[in-house]
Amino acid sequence: MREQLGLALQYLHDHRQDFFTSLKEFVAFPSVSAEPGHYPDVHHAAEWVAGKLLDLGMHNVALFATSGHPIVFGEYLDAGVKAPVVLIYGHYDVEPPDPLDQWKSPPFKARVRGDHVYGRGVADMKGQLILCMAALEAICETGPLPVNIKFLIEGEEEIGSPSLSKFVPEHKEMLQCDFALNLDAEMVSIDLPTITYGMRGLSVCDVTVSGPAWDLHSGLFGGAVANPVQVLCKLIAALQDENGHILLPGFYNRVRSLSTEERRELNQTPMDAAYLLEQTGAPRLWGEAGYTPVENIAARPTLDVNGISGGYSGAGVKTIIPARASAKVSLRLVPDQDPSEVYQLLKQFMQSHAPDSVKVDVREIVNVSPVITNRNSTHVQALSDALHVVWGRRPLFLRLGGSVPIVPLVHKHLGIETVNTGFAILSDCRAHSPDENLHLPTWYHGMEAMVHYFSNLA
Amino acid sequence: MREQLGLALQYLHDHRQDFFTSLKEFVAFPSVSAEPGHYPDVHHAAEWVAGKLLDLGMHNVALFATSGHPIVFGEYLDAGVKAPVVLIYGHYDVEPPDPLDQWKSPPFKARVRGDHVYGRGVADMKGQLILCMAALEAICETGPLPVNIKFLIEGEEEIGSPSLSKFVPEHKEMLQCDFALNLDAEMVSIDLPTITYGMRGLSVCDVTVSGPAWDLHSGLFGGAVANPVQVLCKLIAALQDENGHILLPGFYNRVRSLSTEERRELNQTPMDAAYLLEQTGAPRLWGEAGYTPVENIAARPTLDVNGISGGYSGAGVKTIIPARASAKVSLRLVPDQDPSEVYQLLKQFMQSHAPDSVKVDVREIVNVSPVITNRNSTHVQALSDALHVVWGRRPLFLRLGGSVPIVPLVHKHLGIETVNTGFAILSDCRAHSPDENLHLPTWYHGMEAMVHYFSNLA
Repeated sequence: MREQLGLALQYLHDHRQDFFTSLKEFVAFPSVSAEPGHYPDVHHAAEWVAGKLLDLGMHNVALFATSGHPIVFGEYLDAGVKAPVVLIYGHYDVEPPDPLDQWKSPPFKARVRGDHVYGRGVADMKGQLILCMAALEAICETGPLPVNIKFLIEGEEEIGSPSLSKFVPEHKEMLQCDFALNLDAEMVSIDLPTITYGMRGLSVCDVTVSGPAWDLHSGLFGGAVANPVQVLCKLIAALQDENGHILLPGFYNRVRSLSTEERRELNQTPMDAAYLLEQTGAPRLWGEAGYTPVENIAARPTLDVNGISGGYSGAGVKTIIPARASAKVSLRLVPDQDPSEVYQLLKQFMQSHAPDSVKVDVREIVNVSPVITNRNSTHVQALSDALHVVWGRRPLFLRLGGSVPIVPLVHKHLGIETVNTGFAILSDCRAHSPDENLHLPTWYHGMEAMVHYFSNLA
Repeated sequence: MREQLGLALQYLHDHRQDFFTSLKEFVAFPSVSAEPGHYPDVHHAAEWVAGKLLDLGMHNVALFATSGHPIVFGEYLDAGVKAPVVLIYGHYDVEPPDPLDQWKSPPFKARVRGDHVYGRGVADMKGQLILCMAALEAICETGPLPVNIKFLIEGEEEIGSPSLSKFVPEHKEMLQCDFALNLDAEMVSIDLPTITYGMRGLSVCDVTVSGPAWDLHSGLFGGAVANPVQVLCKLIAALQDENGHILLPGFYNRVRSLSTEERRELNQTPMDAAYLLEQTGAPRLWGEAGYTPVENIAARPTLDVNGISGGYSGAGVKTIIPARASAKVSLRLVPDQDPSEVYQLLKQFMQSHAPDSVKVDVREIVNVSPVITNRNSTHVQALSDALHVVWGRRPLFLRLGGSVPIVPLVHKHLGIETVNTGFAILSDCRAHSPDENLHLPTWYHGMEAMVHYFSNLA
């Protein structure tokens, strides 16, 4: 085994250019799951991923059709019944690339500048998938694979995994495993490997306020009808007070309070105020009073409007009362909040606070539960050891502010826990933003860590 | 003169098809002054108008260049020194046509359905300009023109006439006249000719709230930085209370209060609640408490957000904290409010209410003063008589909620008053909205009324 490890690591080193070529090919698919115009591209990316699984020697490779984008599956169960079964999760979809004018190079062309490669999805998470496949290829090409693998790769993570939430309970036997591995988490910094043991949940709703039957001349009718934009602004303004407290009645009832120990640990991470100011470019930080920024991000629920639109926003002026206005209202949730309950709270709040001079519609579009997993399982320790070997230090254990729907889904339906890590740099990778990037030396280190990890699991 | 009148009216009747052809040609220019992509179309429309003035026998026809769209001028001063000099105002620009999917026929193709012609600008105000030119053509083709004319036709009315506000004071001598005639006002209904003697002013600002330097992942940073959309919503929500009172300090100081007589008169217009509900399709009416809807529209200042945008508004979801959000905030003003002063109030309010977790920019884009003109001048009486002849009843005298910048401009710089009328039907024409239209029988009546009017002025 030790000898194979050396050969596998050498293989990784010798084939870096091939892995980079795969990443370039993968990034070239504009697999934007949110945008109907890109649906064919999303499908092509799924087919490309299935091809990769075949190349890796996976069996039963299939694209499962859903009401949205296909789910790619493939498995290798020849490591024997004593070897663990690992469900490797991934997603091949990406966030929309806009605003396009803020990219230094085209988002769907992987371009190297210095130590980084830039492109939509290189960090979140096409690069992570290629990294994992590279490690498995290196092992398979230099000896037998010592673990059983099931790949589950979806195309809807960036839109809240609506199909996966049906697929997992409907395919329990096929997905049966000892634990799941998710590389869709981040490292805090280049020299600090990170294992994520907590993730926030997510509830997103489309809120639409409708007033007049069509856009009206604001001179001829201004003063006689309610303006849907202003009503929507009042509703949004009423959701949160000046101290960042969310004002939905009962919203905090199920929020698990932070222990002194957790607070101490969170505030020891390098994500302090100076770090966050640099990462965001904001004039100053702001968040729920009584908590530090890192506590607010990792362990407190938050509210963000992801987008708002209504009326005329072009050059100059169009003096109208818009017929309607819409906003995407999202809430990040923490244990033990329930996204379905939060959706109901939001809907009731909007409908009870709206005046009868308008009509309000609230429609749920994302529903993901928050989760905290066991930091002390043997699967987690095996990863910790692997990261230790490569980086020369134990990983940081982190609760992250983001959400990955698979984690609560497999916990709920399969009763298994997920090991979350990843090799995109939280402080630098600009996931979901223009100039998304991946630090190439860390990417190669990540491949090595995964080779060690699969060896450790044997 | 009476004989010429008969000939002119006959000419109108015989040439209806020609006038309609002219209207079709004029509507075909997408002369949207607000949108840079349409600037060449705006210029072509100006050239077309200049050609029409030459056809009418105007002298010194010229396109005056401005920092925006050209101003078309032409004059006829051969009626003698005893005849009045009338400054005929018009604009050849139109509002943007969006939302396009709400039009039943293409906005830049004049299409007849029943008694109406549909198209962007048929009511506001390409149809009104053709109507006025038709009347002058009918008179000129059947005898001598008994009045002196100066045409002043701009291409920026729909964006607040920024160039005209410089042009008028710089060309006082050229524009010297006895009074101005503006057909950019409306009739209340088909059987009720209308003279508008008051118009509201207008102040429009672009308000932009900037937060993080780029769009951020709302999971990784939500809870640590202020969201520009939510800050903008709070600022907009704070501008007006639940009773429709505008909360800018000192905003009402200069508002002329309504006399009992004015209130009685306003509330006798046919624009009652049932009328306004039908006109707007709103679930119910809403406006400043203590005033009826028609009072609020005609004689009280109001606030409308004409558009708002920020972050992602496409299909599905993009979980970001947007880097910025913007809104177009407009205030309709009444005598004796000053738009420059109101702009300063808005700017101070926004900047003093914004938290230091964001940056707020407020930029003035429209500045138009409110105005009330004399209802008893001989010029107004001559119009009243002309309308009486055609409709068999005296016109309604109305204060309108809209704004036409030329009216306060010529009052301030030339010391003259404007006679405001028009033949688009307020209740029906959908100015600034999809399916803008013109009632053709009324349009032909309007031509007749203008022939009578110019005769009366002789």
